[in-house]
This record gives sequence, C-alpha cells and structure tokens, in this order.
Amino acid sequence: VTVSDLSESDLIARIQSFLPPAPPWVVVGIGDDAAVVEPAKQRLEVLSVDAIVEGVHFDRRFTPPDAIGHRALAVNLSDLASMGAAPRLALLSLALPGALPADHLDAIVRGLAALAARHSLHVVGGNLTRSPGPLVIDVTVMGVAKRRQILTRSGARVGDEIWVTGRLGGAAAGLDMLASGAPDPAPSCVERYLYPEPRLRAGLMLGRNRAATACMDLSDGLGDAVRQVARASKVGAVIDGDSLPVEPEAVRWFAARGDDPVVAAVSRGDDYELLVTARPRARRLLDTLKSSLGVPFTRIGVCTDGDTVLLERGAKRGAAADPLPAGFDHFHQS
Amino acid sequence: VTVSDLSESDLIARIQSFLPPAPPWVVVGIGDDAAVVEPAKQRLEVLSVDAIVEGVHFDRRFTPPDAIGHRALAVNLSDLASMGAAPRLALLSLALPGALPADHLDAIVRGLAALAARHSLHVVGGNLTRSPGPLVIDVTVMGVAKRRQILTRSGARVGDEIWVTGRLGGAAAGLDMLASGAPDPAPSCVERYLYPEPRLRAGLMLGRNRAATACMDLSDGLGDAVRQVARASKVGAVIDGDSLPVEPEAVRWFAARGDDPVVAAVSRGDDYELLVTARPRARRLLDTLKSSLGVPFTRIGVCTDGDTVLLERGAKRGAAADPLPAGFDHFHQS
Repeated sequence: VTVSDLSESDLIARIQSFLPPAPPWVVVGIGDDAAVVEPAKQRLEVLSVDAIVEGVHFDRRFTPPDAIGHRALAVNLSDLASMGAAPRLALLSLALPGALPADHLDAIVRGLAALAARHSLHVVGGNLTRSPGPLVIDVTVMGVAKRRQILTRSGARVGDEIWVTGRLGGAAAGLDMLASGAPDPAPSCVERYLYPEPRLRAGLMLGRNRAATACMDLSDGLGDAVRQVARASKVGAVIDGDSLPVEPEAVRWFAARGDDPVVAAVSRGDDYELLVTARPRARRLLDTLKSSLGVPFTRIGVCTDGDTVLLERGAKRGAAADPLPAGFDHFHQS
Repeated sequence: VTVSDLSESDLIARIQSFLPPAPPWVVVGIGDDAAVVEPAKQRLEVLSVDAIVEGVHFDRRFTPPDAIGHRALAVNLSDLASMGAAPRLALLSLALPGALPADHLDAIVRGLAALAARHSLHVVGGNLTRSPGPLVIDVTVMGVAKRRQILTRSGARVGDEIWVTGRLGGAAAGLDMLASGAPDPAPSCVERYLYPEPRLRAGLMLGRNRAATACMDLSDGLGDAVRQVARASKVGAVIDGDSLPVEPEAVRWFAARGDDPVVAAVSRGDDYELLVTARPRARRLLDTLKSSLGVPFTRIGVCTDGDTVLLERGAKRGAAADPLPAGFDHFHQS
C-alpha cells in the first residue's frame, strides 16, 4: 500500500492515530480549516519553521523513516532550545511522493510524535499534499519563554567566553559511515546522526539563569555558528582548536581517511548542539549547569575586538592563527 | 542570475527587502534562530499551514511569479477567513530549485508581500532550502479572534440555510483558459485564478455578527465543502443547482466545450469563496452584510436531516435529485 492508494482523509486519520489527545488549551484541533488555541499567559511566543527535503537533508536509502520524522521535528526544537524557549505546539506540512509506502508514512509520524511527546509538544494541525518530486517535511513550531529569558545571537560582548554543549563531529562521521556503507559504523556516531537530541533543557536553564549573553544552535556547523554570533554581536572570535570536544569515534573515523578531525568537526553540519557566549564571571554558574544537566559543556574560545574569526591550534596562535573554517551550506551542498 | 548563484544570506537579504519594518509586537524578527512575538491580548490564536507545490498547485509556464507568491499566502488567508479570524503573522518556508531566476524569486516575494500588506499581516520569519525537484512554498499563518467569534465546520443544524460568497467556477475556467493557451481568455476568469481574494472581511463580519452556524472555504470546490460541513455537523444537505452563482464567463467557457457549467463549478477547486450555514431568521442580517461588504452572497440550499448531500436541478427535485458532485482532490489529481 502506498500513499497514492489512500484518500486524503484516510491519510489524515492515519496520522492522527499516532498523536495523543489534544490538551485543554486546544480549542479546535485537526479537522477544521485551521487550529484554534489559547495563548500561554505571561509568555512571549517563539516561532520557527524548518523544512527537510529528501536528497538535500536526508537520504531515504539509509535513513529509517522514523529517523526522518525525528529529524524533521528535532531541527525545529533545536531552534527553540537556542532561544531559551519551552516547546508548545507544532504544525506539520507534508509533501508526499505517491509511491511512498504507507507504513513509511506511519513510521515518519511515529518518530516525530515520539520526540514531541518527550517534550510536551502538541501537533495541532497541518497540511498534506502530493509531491511530484522529493519527500518534503515542513514543521512549524511555537515555544514560549518569559521576556527576560530569551536568548539571541546578538548579545555577545568583547571578553565573553565561548562555550559549546555536547560533542562535535559525531553526526557528520555517522552520516559518512551510513552513506559509504561502512562495515562497522560506530553506534555513537550513527545514533547522533539519525536521532539528534535538541538541547532543550540546556537552553531553558541558560535562559532562566541568565548565564548566557548569546546562544545559537550548530545546525550548520560550529564554523557557521561562531561567525553568525560574531556578526550579529559585532565582535570577533578566537576558537582554541585544541580544546574542541570532538567525538572520539569521529576523530578515529576522520583521521583514518586522512581528514583533519578538527576541521571536519568545525565545518560539517548536523550537530544540534548549542554555541553559548557568557561573561567570564559566569564560569562557575556554567560549571554547575554542566553537572546538573549531565551534558558536556566546554569552554572553547573568547570573543574579541574586531571582526576576525580565528582558529588557534598548537603553536599557531595570535597573529599566526588561521581563519576558522566556514560552516556547512545546506543551500549549495547536499 | 539564478538562486544557486547567491548565498543563503544574499537570498534572505533579498527577501527582506520586500518586507516592511517589523511592528512593535515583534521582539525578535528575521535573522535569529527563531522569531519572538508578543501574543495579542484577549484573543484566541488561529493557526494554519498550507503548501503549494509546482506541478500540483501551479504551473510556472503560465503562472507569473507574483501570482505564485500571492496564491501561497491567499490559500492560507482563506483558511483564516473561514474561521472568522483576523490575520496577524506568517512564516515563509521556501524550497527553491537552483535554476530559479533570482528575479522570479523577487516577484514571488513581492506578490506575497503585497497581499500581506493589504491585510496587515507581518512575515516574522521563515526558512530557505534548495529543492532538487519542484518549487515548494509552505506558508504558516496565525490569525486572532475572540472566542465567541470563531467559526467552525461543525455547527450547522437541520433547517439551516446554506449560503456562498462571490461567484463560482471562474478560477477553474481561468486555469483552463491559461493551460490551453486560449486566444482570448476572459480577464474575469484569469484574474480569479491568478489572484484569488481571500474573503477576510466577510469571515470577520460573519464571526462578529454571530450570523453563521458553520463556515468553510471552497479551496477544494463547493462539492467538497458542502460534504465536509455536512459530515462535521452531522446533517445532510440539498443544494439548489439553479441558484448557484456561476461566473457568467465560466458558464460560456464550459458550455462551449460541452461541459455542464454547474457540475464544473461544483466539482472544480480554486474558488476561495466561503460556504456559510445560518438559521433562516439570520436572512435579513446576511442581506445587510451583503450590501455592506459589496460581495455577492447567495442562498443556495438547506441543511437536512440524514446524511445525503443532493443537487436539485430543474424538475429533478426531492427523491429525484442526484448526489452533489464530489469536490476536487489535490492529493490525487494535478
């Protein structure tokens, strides 16, 4: 059975069967021309949309359908995490190739719904259309946050220290392992690629503690995130390449192929970690956060006067440092 | 110059150049990981997402790019209209073929921005990705309404009269004229197809006056809308085919091709009019509305006991009536 064998209302019923009952703040749910919700009281609303496109962001040949659904929501939740917001609701817009097996659609929705449930996010509506080309999953999310807890890209100041959550490069190595059909792919890397965990608790705690001056997620790589935060905040940055928390299995993978693991970890995408800047006096607060979150949280550099973004490594420091490699460009590369 | 010649930040800057400055309730606008807005006070939020896909919902060979942008937003605004909501904000997610000329992208955004400005809707954020296949435009909108003004599909009762705004079939005839390269396409039909006008004022006034018991837009045709409202409201319906306000140029077009104009007007999509049910005693209120809106507003049938949905025509009335033709299925037809 493929999706073209089913009517639109069959497909909607199938999707709905994977979603929990609507919470009380949903006044009109799936099935009308639009959803109607009560806004959360005393909160600002944080809105983001992200699409994942077959052939650009995922490859159905080696990505299980539940991982596709997981990813479609995770990339959006990562944007909420980086703003310090708590997820509230989502709208799901699917463009489906007619030949997509109906049980793949089920698994896509199941993967998305499982991640939604873990973060108390409710899917209030959506749209279905046929695609004459690739599978496209467009997810819009709304989160909520108090005004003083919002994190942006533009608050970093000269002298702020630069931190990053988690480990880098694992997702890129995992993707390479899957795409090349590596015989013994490292589970830590493959898992990181297929099921990225948005750093929602970290983002929320950073916002609540007012520990961060700026925050951004690493969807397009550390090289991109450092540049974007530096540009938005009108500062420069120096990253200490020797301090970068590169995933050990990714170091092995890239080194075995003659690639520089640090360059790979900086320039490749799909790490849904958070880049954070903070005043040096917040160091103790961040160390406390690290232990209460149970997530690595590593100091990797400092914001500087000017507009250069450098990578220091070994003896190549100060004026001898190279520019930080650029991030990943999903628009121009696949 | 095509979009693949431009960087993602160039493209975003280009899009932003067509958008007005953000209103004061936008706390963080385009350029961060997510948008941040203050919710409207004392209102419910009405949320909808709709995608238009090249080859399914539009054909670039005969649809000017500004009409594509107009349509992408109009289909969403029509959903807000049918709920009785006032538009507030939108998020715009574009999947762009690399070969799309940059000035076509400009025109798409210009068409969307012009419609947004006329309805005081602000684009607060979005997403850009490359498409290896068709152009896909996914728009999420949020509108606002007071709780008692919300219109749904499910409130129709036996004995309610069925009304429709505007004229039917013009958009379908316009599409046929463009697709077949007709030498003298009727401007009224072509305009209706290319630049559908969402019935926002009508929806708002129906909600405010509490004149309607149910409302839905005709995106997939009258045949679909009557069925959906009847099913959601657990009533049947009888439509008087002789009363249907079919666009005169569309009557001429379909009749000249040997097609039944009433069947075409009922079963074809793209009429972004509103189907409304109301108690018979609301008739005077609706007549007043009609003159204050300057929009045709025609009584076309009645809600009945049972679950059949019939089309009466000429002498074929009562038990002799045929089933109402089905609406248009965007999922299975192109």
